[in-house]
Amino acid sequence: MVSARVNDMAAAAYAGWLREDATLEEMRTGFDGMCPEPAADVTLAEGVVGGVRGTWVEVPESGATGSAATVLHFHAGGYLIGSPTSHRDLGARIARAAGARVFLADYRLAPEHAFPAAYDDGVAAYRGMLADGVDPASLVVSGDSAGGGLALAVLAAARDAGDPLPAAGVLMSPWADLTLAGDSMTGREAVDPLVSRAVLTEMQQGYLQGADPADHRASPLLGNLAGLPPLLVQVGSSEVLEDDAVRIADGVLRAGGEAFLQIGYEMVHVFQMFADRLPEGAAAVDRIGAFVRAQVRSAVVDVAAV
Amino acid sequence: MVSARVNDMAAAAYAGWLREDATLEEMRTGFDGMCPEPAADVTLAEGVVGGVRGTWVEVPESGATGSAATVLHFHAGGYLIGSPTSHRDLGARIARAAGARVFLADYRLAPEHAFPAAYDDGVAAYRGMLADGVDPASLVVSGDSAGGGLALAVLAAARDAGDPLPAAGVLMSPWADLTLAGDSMTGREAVDPLVSRAVLTEMQQGYLQGADPADHRASPLLGNLAGLPPLLVQVGSSEVLEDDAVRIADGVLRAGGEAFLQIGYEMVHVFQMFADRLPEGAAAVDRIGAFVRAQVRSAVVDVAAV
Repeated sequence: MVSARVNDMAAAAYAGWLREDATLEEMRTGFDGMCPEPAADVTLAEGVVGGVRGTWVEVPESGATGSAATVLHFHAGGYLIGSPTSHRDLGARIARAAGARVFLADYRLAPEHAFPAAYDDGVAAYRGMLADGVDPASLVVSGDSAGGGLALAVLAAARDAGDPLPAAGVLMSPWADLTLAGDSMTGREAVDPLVSRAVLTEMQQGYLQGADPADHRASPLLGNLAGLPPLLVQVGSSEVLEDDAVRIADGVLRAGGEAFLQIGYEMVHVFQMFADRLPEGAAAVDRIGAFVRAQVRSAVVDVAAV
Repeated sequence: MVSARVNDMAAAAYAGWLREDATLEEMRTGFDGMCPEPAADVTLAEGVVGGVRGTWVEVPESGATGSAATVLHFHAGGYLIGSPTSHRDLGARIARAAGARVFLADYRLAPEHAFPAAYDDGVAAYRGMLADGVDPASLVVSGDSAGGGLALAVLAAARDAGDPLPAAGVLMSPWADLTLAGDSMTGREAVDPLVSRAVLTEMQQGYLQGADPADHRASPLLGNLAGLPPLLVQVGSSEVLEDDAVRIADGVLRAGGEAFLQIGYEMVHVFQMFADRLPEGAAAVDRIGAFVRAQVRSAVVDVAAV
């Protein structure tokens, strides 16, 4: 179950646009409109990294890690909706908690741009960061929902290409298996008020347009999970996607890597987006900040020691 | 689901004694008999700590942490069955992984000894460790299943009494809510081959014998989770008890503490007991060892710095 407090909050936030009969444009506008106004001291600036447009988010605390940490973030939206606009408040909160600047990548969306367009943009943005001189030891790749899967795919791509790896990855309610396996897809069905197999199936079809859902670029959870940087994986227990998070952490640990799993009990999909209304969301963002600071610091120390 | 490999292993291990019509004595003998013979270099010695009988388990690696780490362990068995005999192999594996000596407490069992006998023995054993001169900075309290709940209750008791806290706690598939709340009690019902609400209800009734299941000495998850030492919490995703682990970690984090949650995907109740047959069980024990070593080391450093 989800408490009435959380359920009412989520229902109100998604009301009016997350409907079966909503058009794509209505959903995009609705998702963008769900985002609270960022605090007054947040600066937003259009930018291009690796040929990928996006929005740089900075707060007075950016740079406070002492190593000018940069977070490359991929937003939620099932590869169909979402934008830097929908995620500017979450980006600003991560920036503040981590003492970092955040780049919200405006990767190409389906159905206009089918798989692997989003993936290609994700990889290009990561490489662009390196090409622009961002120290990988100060770089963190993050994402929420579909963007969490994309972040994981980008990390795997960097590993496979022999590119320098970032200091860490942060995945919020990642959707990293487009075959929709995972026992929670049914086991948590009764308690998830936001996401369902039906919704995910529509998004999967809209993105893949016939491509193999088991392709590791779309479903990095099904690929090699060895050799990745330390990951923080957060998810709610009231999510059909719980097992995507569980399987990522389990797979990374089994492959000898480092993964920190945090499950917010009775929390819903990407509860961090409601950090302004849910103390649990704010606490999760605080944890992200602490993790980024710790990993960037240790990566800098590691690099310095080499 | 649970793979055929894991399911067959678990079915074979529990075959013949975990039956509805088994007598209590048959279940106790069966559980004890399920334990593999410990390796030849394991030494077992009867002991008494704080008036509580038990078995000291040592291996050649014991003491290898450099701080003579001691693990006080509370075994599984729903407060009705289980003993140092059933857990001597798990104890030895933890001893080896952690470089520690392990005391398997033979706390009093129900129905002969109803609640709060097990709790009282748990608290007495912990205090006995301190009275016997064990440095709390080198001490870890652990437990599996009902013993995991008991371990958590003992930690809370130490905090409430103002006793020195141990360096850490380790909980394997803890049963820490005898009211049987938690969405996984139904959400994971279809995939848990070993534990069910029916089994837990019988154990709860046998132990409590009319006492309040929400009593924090029986259900420490429902009590105050602040001010505890760092916890490692492990559970399988195919467990109706998954949410006891999730809620402990979530509650500790929200209370400002440290909790590391590891969920073994498609793993079953206390899969660490099958470390001889399941690589996942062996890997989980390895993680416990690394955690104990790290926490004992950092506790020693903390204490030295004071």
